Amino acid sequence: MIKIYPYNRKPFYYETDQMGIVHHSNYIRWFEETRLDLMDQAGFTYNEMENLGVLIPVLEVNCKYINYIGFNDEVSIYCKVDSFTGIKMTLSYEIYRNKDNVLCATGNSMHCFVNKDMKILRVKRDFPAIYNFFNELVDNEKRK
Amino acid sequence: MIKIYPYNRKPFYYETDQMGIVHHSNYIRWFEETRLDLMDQAGFTYNEMENLGVLIPVLEVNCKYINYIGFNDEVSIYCKVDSFTGIKMTLSYEIYRNKDNVLCATGNSMHCFVNKDMKILRVKRDFPAIYNFFNELVDNEKRK
Amino acid sequence: MIKIYPYNRKPFYYETDQMGIVHHSNYIRWFEETRLDLMDQAGFTYNEMENLGVLIPVLEVNCKYINYIGFNDEVSIYCKVDSFTGIKMTLSYEIYRNKDNVLCATGNSMHCFVNKDMKILRVKRDFPAIYNFFNELVDNEKRK
Amino acid sequence: MIKIYPYNRKPFYYETDQMGIVHHSNYIRWFEETRLDLMDQAGFTYNEMENLGVLIPVLEVNCKYINYIGFNDEVSIYCKVDSFTGIKMTLSYEIYRNKDNVLCATGNSMHCFVNKDMKILRVKRDFPAIYNFFNELVDNEKRK
Repeated sequence: MIKIYPYNRKPFYYETDQMGIVHHSNYIRWFEETRLDLMDQAGFTYNEMENLGVLIPVLEVNCKYINYIGFNDEVSIYCKVDSFTGIKMTLSYEIYRNKDNVLCATGNSMHCFVNKDMKILRVKRDFPAIYNFFNELVDNEKRK
Repeated sequence: MIKIYPYNRKPFYYETDQMGIVHHSNYIRWFEETRLDLMDQAGFTYNEMENLGVLIPVLEVNCKYINYIGFNDEVSIYCKVDSFTGIKMTLSYEIYRNKDNVLCATGNSMHCFVNKDMKILRVKRDFPAIYNFFNELVDNEKRK
Repeated sequence: MIKIYPYNRKPFYYETDQMGIVHHSNYIRWFEETRLDLMDQAGFTYNEMENLGVLIPVLEVNCKYINYIGFNDEVSIYCKVDSFTGIKMTLSYEIYRNKDNVLCATGNSMHCFVNKDMKILRVKRDFPAIYNFFNELVDNEKRK
Repeated sequence: MIKIYPYNRKPFYYETDQMGIVHHSNYIRWFEETRLDLMDQAGFTYNEMENLGVLIPVLEVNCKYINYIGFNDEVSIYCKVDSFTGIKMTLSYEIYRNKDNVLCATGNSMHCFVNKDMKILRVKRDFPAIYNFFNELVDNEKRK
């Protein structure tokens, strides 16, 4: 079983807006940072996938904002692969504020797998290592 | 009846990523640009609301990505106020590519109304002009 | 002589920070928007150049911040090509606030010309149309 | 003497552009991250200063781009306080690519000190702790 640590993130000043909180669009970027960090931790980086010609664009993204995150609020972002079919993949996210462990946001993203010309890939047939990698990440969650 | 024009937007170079398309997080920012433009067109700017002490943070945002948007693809973004209760408001969005009128993305956002201390406001009681403004935008859609 | 209009820009909400002003990094992005708009106006888009295999990366950028720009401050950005040698190009920028015509920032950027492998191009020899285009933009300024 | 470590930064995917490199505007944001990290390391956070009513806006920023930074290129950013008069402060930056220790960019930023109404502050008189803090950071560099 692979031990995945949450992604720790300090807001940057330029991520705040004049409401005095982190702008909501940045959570979507943090989700991306988190899923790429998950891949790094699990041993197959997004960069390696791109070098193999596999891109993982976003089909859908959703985010619920529960508590504001201020500039000074470090957060821990938990991410897991909820499902993977070889064609599509769904991940979910939870953002917790470190100082009081309060849940600030939840979200999920759905993805497909394409080549550099944006054509859909058959990952199972053509990239078995990638297929196994994401399958293991799903199994990893089930075993918890 | 208020005639609302779609929000026209040319992607900026810095909004592309190394996949060669507009990064998905920017759609969330475009939604914000579009709803603020809608308010401008309808005659009550977001800036005026903030000056009155009314902020409209995001409770939830969702986006489905249907077709990629490239740097050179000007888009038209349609936005409407789907519902408004005085406490919560929901808007929906559609992004069309201008050159071929292809639908590239759909989405929606849910909002509440707070003061500068982030306390929930009773808009109907305390800001009747704002209450009427958003109600009319909902009615405006129904009349179509 | 080509008549170039200033680039008109309304700040976006997500460009403000918790200081309540447009974050300084966005001026650098606005400079890029402005120089690409200048090219559009002059009749040779950046997109067309990229399609010919010519990229124009930034070698240096400088910005002086003179007056704050708030969310509600529409600005006009003036841009001109100060010099072009076929190898390097320098542009300068001035940002004026529309409501009172106050100068808010000045800046400049220096660029080179490379192919998609980031190798320096001899624009004069290999892309005479691009060479003439930028030369005319320099001459255009001198004639003013 | 205070030991300041360089700021380590992994580029984020959304920071790349379709040229396949980190967009130049992000270096300006990284400079900000680095100077705030410097303050954290030296024991007086930017957040604490803002809570005291002291903001440090940017008067000028300059950056020279020497080598491209790709998505996969982790960097170390070195920052030092070059001068501090109590009215103005200048910092300089160097960005090195970790894998081969190649210098990718240099830059500097100039700042002033204002209160929340953007009025210039006399730091020496009104905030001696802040005055001493930045003076020590200048001395720290001289002692090297």
